[in-house]
Amino acid sequence: MRILVVNVNTTQSMTDSIGRQASAVASPGTEIVALTPLFGADSCEGNYESYLAAIAVMETVRAYTEPFDAVIQAGYGEHGREGLQELLDVPVVDITDAAASTAMFLGHKYSVVTTLDRAVPLIEDRLELGGLDARCASVRASGLGVLELEEDPARAVAAIVDQAEQAVTQDKAEVIVLGCGGMAGLDAAVRERAGVPVVDGVAAAVTIAEGLVRQGLTTSKVRTYATPRPKKFKNWPPA
Amino acid sequence: MRILVVNVNTTQSMTDSIGRQASAVASPGTEIVALTPLFGADSCEGNYESYLAAIAVMETVRAYTEPFDAVIQAGYGEHGREGLQELLDVPVVDITDAAASTAMFLGHKYSVVTTLDRAVPLIEDRLELGGLDARCASVRASGLGVLELEEDPARAVAAIVDQAEQAVTQDKAEVIVLGCGGMAGLDAAVRERAGVPVVDGVAAAVTIAEGLVRQGLTTSKVRTYATPRPKKFKNWPPA
Amino acid sequence: MRILVVNVNTTQSMTDSIGRQASAVASPGTEIVALTPLFGADSCEGNYESYLAAIAVMETVRAYTEPFDAVIQAGYGEHGREGLQELLDVPVVDITDAAASTAMFLGHKYSVVTTLDRAVPLIEDRLELGGLDARCASVRASGLGVLELEEDPARAVAAIVDQAEQAVTQDKAEVIVLGCGGMAGLDAAVRERAGVPVVDGVAAAVTIAEGLVRQGLTTSKVRTYATPRPKKFKNWPPA
Amino acid sequence: MRILVVNVNTTQSMTDSIGRQASAVASPGTEIVALTPLFGADSCEGNYESYLAAIAVMETVRAYTEPFDAVIQAGYGEHGREGLQELLDVPVVDITDAAASTAMFLGHKYSVVTTLDRAVPLIEDRLELGGLDARCASVRASGLGVLELEEDPARAVAAIVDQAEQAVTQDKAEVIVLGCGGMAGLDAAVRERAGVPVVDGVAAAVTIAEGLVRQGLTTSKVRTYATPRPKKFKNWPPA
Amino acid sequence: MRILVVNVNTTQSMTDSIGRQASAVASPGTEIVALTPLFGADSCEGNYESYLAAIAVMETVRAYTEPFDAVIQAGYGEHGREGLQELLDVPVVDITDAAASTAMFLGHKYSVVTTLDRAVPLIEDRLELGGLDARCASVRASGLGVLELEEDPARAVAAIVDQAEQAVTQDKAEVIVLGCGGMAGLDAAVRERAGVPVVDGVAAAVTIAEGLVRQGLTTSKVRTYATPRPKKFKNWPPA
Amino acid sequence: MRILVVNVNTTQSMTDSIGRQASAVASPGTEIVALTPLFGADSCEGNYESYLAAIAVMETVRAYTEPFDAVIQAGYGEHGREGLQELLDVPVVDITDAAASTAMFLGHKYSVVTTLDRAVPLIEDRLELGGLDARCASVRASGLGVLELEEDPARAVAAIVDQAEQAVTQDKAEVIVLGCGGMAGLDAAVRERAGVPVVDGVAAAVTIAEGLVRQGLTTSKVRTYATPRPKKFKNWPPA
Repeated sequence: MRILVVNVNTTQSMTDSIGRQASAVASPGTEIVALTPLFGADSCEGNYESYLAAIAVMETVRAYTEPFDAVIQAGYGEHGREGLQELLDVPVVDITDAAASTAMFLGHKYSVVTTLDRAVPLIEDRLELGGLDARCASVRASGLGVLELEEDPARAVAAIVDQAEQAVTQDKAEVIVLGCGGMAGLDAAVRERAGVPVVDGVAAAVTIAEGLVRQGLTTSKVRTYATPRPKKFKNWPPA
Repeated sequence: MRILVVNVNTTQSMTDSIGRQASAVASPGTEIVALTPLFGADSCEGNYESYLAAIAVMETVRAYTEPFDAVIQAGYGEHGREGLQELLDVPVVDITDAAASTAMFLGHKYSVVTTLDRAVPLIEDRLELGGLDARCASVRASGLGVLELEEDPARAVAAIVDQAEQAVTQDKAEVIVLGCGGMAGLDAAVRERAGVPVVDGVAAAVTIAEGLVRQGLTTSKVRTYATPRPKKFKNWPPA
Repeated sequence: MRILVVNVNTTQSMTDSIGRQASAVASPGTEIVALTPLFGADSCEGNYESYLAAIAVMETVRAYTEPFDAVIQAGYGEHGREGLQELLDVPVVDITDAAASTAMFLGHKYSVVTTLDRAVPLIEDRLELGGLDARCASVRASGLGVLELEEDPARAVAAIVDQAEQAVTQDKAEVIVLGCGGMAGLDAAVRERAGVPVVDGVAAAVTIAEGLVRQGLTTSKVRTYATPRPKKFKNWPPA
Repeated sequence: MRILVVNVNTTQSMTDSIGRQASAVASPGTEIVALTPLFGADSCEGNYESYLAAIAVMETVRAYTEPFDAVIQAGYGEHGREGLQELLDVPVVDITDAAASTAMFLGHKYSVVTTLDRAVPLIEDRLELGGLDARCASVRASGLGVLELEEDPARAVAAIVDQAEQAVTQDKAEVIVLGCGGMAGLDAAVRERAGVPVVDGVAAAVTIAEGLVRQGLTTSKVRTYATPRPKKFKNWPPA
Repeated sequence: MRILVVNVNTTQSMTDSIGRQASAVASPGTEIVALTPLFGADSCEGNYESYLAAIAVMETVRAYTEPFDAVIQAGYGEHGREGLQELLDVPVVDITDAAASTAMFLGHKYSVVTTLDRAVPLIEDRLELGGLDARCASVRASGLGVLELEEDPARAVAAIVDQAEQAVTQDKAEVIVLGCGGMAGLDAAVRERAGVPVVDGVAAAVTIAEGLVRQGLTTSKVRTYATPRPKKFKNWPPA
Repeated sequence: MRILVVNVNTTQSMTDSIGRQASAVASPGTEIVALTPLFGADSCEGNYESYLAAIAVMETVRAYTEPFDAVIQAGYGEHGREGLQELLDVPVVDITDAAASTAMFLGHKYSVVTTLDRAVPLIEDRLELGGLDARCASVRASGLGVLELEEDPARAVAAIVDQAEQAVTQDKAEVIVLGCGGMAGLDAAVRERAGVPVVDGVAAAVTIAEGLVRQGLTTSKVRTYATPRPKKFKNWPPA
């Protein structure tokens, strides 16, 4: 089985990190292919970059010429999953949904710890649209930008643990979700210090995607995610 | 006051029609500038085109070099408004929100009549995100594609009226919203036959945008719609 | 176009202030007629006075003998709008709804700052009934009574700004709504100090009412706001 | 114990009928005093009459000079309960809330059968405000006006049973609530034919009011229902 | 009329206390029979004991051979009420629902003060399922275990009052519900010190059960609470 | 890895069927142990049996003496999962949650097709409590009892497909969930005829449980699912 794991920003080192996290949890026989978008911003920290990433991820997957069995969109709280689902028959798993869905099996309420405060409403909106917000205790910001996570992982862990502890004591979270694709790989360190289960979306998405494939399940094509109708395009895709 | 009214598809005749509808309701002294996206699909009837339109509308507005006082995104139920709000200080009004908001002043519940069934969930999602769904009785599909509306307006009116009547009798709607930018100009004909107020999003958006400008109100920059942070872009914008 | 702006209390100076605020934002050609209820309390700060105001506003509008194009009910969070909508075909705009609806175009979440704590649940209830509460971050009390606003505007501004700042930092509001008709005219001063858009309901209602009239839209008469059935009245209206 | 049961319309025969229904279920030692409002409409079938009734019920209770232990507002889905709660320390029970609350002890979902279709949204709104709508399957109209119920009880029972059966089979209701004070006394006949528990709001309210009094419970005065602040009134109360 | 009041734990002194509280509020002519479950834990402070209590209460009621008119399940936030409703035609009143329903007649919002923090989510879940959570401001823990309540009532009152005061000032509760069957009898002391109405579930349930019986109302048998279908049981009931 | 899959009824052939379905989807290296409860009813079709099953499943797992890595509760819409989560550190996956969670990755809305109409509210309640109901279009009954499924699989498939088709066309479901553990193994046949993805809860639960184990995730012990406190038990467990 081959699973495409698509980063939402154009920072190659982050794609590499996401790929490593995915491979670490993948079953024997699963090939992880980590892709960097063909165009876009070096990090997504708001709607403009996120909308750009949405279409970049779609075009990047369309440009991939080998067969594959599932796609993971590896940005937390980003736009675009619905478009991928229209374009593909194979399962599409967004790490936002994967992590929330996973967390709900482990505790009564979960909190998300993300990067900047400005990303919080985007994540809240995506969880609401995904129908996964009823058991979300809070979405909290660590105050670190996406690229800062990579620059200083120890500082990142400390900032995330700090918010995780507040989520547990004040918001009554019982599980913590790492709310950024760039946090892939920090889950073990956070879990050790926070004393509650910590879910990484990339790892969660890999096991869910594998499970869907093994069950022979594919994206429903009857309505919302029906294949796009034929269109005439102007100036698209870019040369 | 100058208001940009941006179509979401690349069909120029539809931009023209939207522009005429906007101009018809605009106050003396308001200049309507109708724009066609620089790239994209000739109609938006699903998530793929809609996400493409989202970024196309943003780039089109960014490429507009004259001053303006407000922007109207003239696609019903499409993605992207939040990105525009980040990029701009002036008010951004999406016709989805404008029409729903207007309908709520006229009746206890409203229904939206749109084009194809596959567009219904997109509209429902946008209304939910906008916090404007509590008084929405239903979103109904006329069964006509976007471009078919223009080809045969009489047939379009008949199909919309048919759904409007069902919305009133079965779903208990008291107001009808025309759920497609391409329906601009059909409101009078539908209103006459449906016996209830009929709201066109383009007209509604123009009066709302004018009102916001007259009150000196601008997009809040403290959190969700804060100006994007500086980024490095790869292969973007397209040549 | 003539718009009736009806105060909910019987304090004439407050009617005057509301009228000035309305006139300041009205378009050329719009005549604002500010009315004081024929009976009622000198301020509304609870359900008893508010219910009395509801029926007083209706009787005051019924007693107005000149033609008019729209009515604005200029009390924040008060009862009665639905009754006016039954009695009239022209649009009825309550400043509670107008301000909330306007705020939602400017930010992801808004907070209302009102007078006394006891008014908070009334406002919450009206926003819930109006279907406008989903994006309301909080309703906060400044601690000042309605008539105190007029007595010491500088103190009023300070108290409102204090709550506005807490709404932004603690409740994550991005826009502030002035939650009392008696705050009309304070918006500029609050906006300057709070650093976020500040919406005054009277101003918002005027632009919305004008917009509805220009679009030729009227109150739906098919169900909830159908004209009252003929009744026999006992001891009503009062001599 | 003395309980005031206040009709919302000025039709004395309906007050008498409500009083009989209340007395039939009252405990030994409970005195039921049925009151007709001092002013208002002969039936309430919409917001205008309902708002008038709200204030009329309050003034009627204020004018009652003997001591009493609880008040029942005997109109289904009408405005005004919150005002009574402000004015009084003793418990106030609205039959809308009493019936819904009672029905929820008897089945998973309940439906309300009321008079005219135009009353349905008022009832839905009151149930929503009362926090009692989550287990409401539907509010249905029998198509009969308030005064028609009294004129032809057999026809009323047939129309109510017809809607009750549809509520059970289509809306999955397990309990039926009689949604009009004027239906007091029809519960036995409807119950016999509908095959499910049928709740009459007047009877329910009497047992609830008695229970509150026996427990020594009174209306909370800390916030929403705090005693009204002193006001200056203009032209009120009417001579 | 005979009402069974069934404790959920096997501590006889707690059954006695619940029985006394029930008898104190019961009408003349009502016989209270307080039952201790045939099996189970000496206190319920989590899901395992609560599920065990659910089935123990059912078997205990099934084993009761005398006629009775209603059953009260006297555990706060415990499982099992729906099963009792299936087994019986007479009304079943859970003290969780009874107290919440009663509190809603007395104030705009109520809070529950219970024992341990771990019980809070169970109570929240039961209120949500019962459709009684919309007006719940908060569920707070006193930090005392169930059996500690009996050991030191003065300490219990102090801990409950402390949380009640925070509920009123911080969560905007207007009424307090005692969230444990073991708190029966503490309501007067808490009420005196908290300054708001305090509802004890056992007392509330008795008056509600009596009211249902007096109205001739029984559990609906059309769907959710239909009598169980015939089954073959293995190793059940226990010897 | 060893996963316990626990049937909720005492019909051994159904345990066998569930075990086969689980084994078919399990990864190499996963051992499926299918358990029949030590006591209980031969089928669960209502709350009484379901509550009995809840405690039976817990006692059965407690009596299992070998090590294991996860537990699957293989009854659809049944009580008890929270108790298992308290008793265990390893992940607990209920097929109700597993199937809903899986379906949400495949379409915008899903419907559940279950056995009898009386089971529908139980399932709706469990989905609501699990926070998985927002994207549930409907829960529909096939009209067949649990044991009838096994007796005549062809008839079962036909009845399920019939409801699935109505769910798609009328309720706008895009994915179908088989709402009974006894339907394990019918998914392929239903999928072929219904034209949309069909999710079987047992298969879904196995892949999810495996994924949780592979990620090293365990049940959170900080609050709701903390290990039960020590108790004195009377007459329990049964001899």
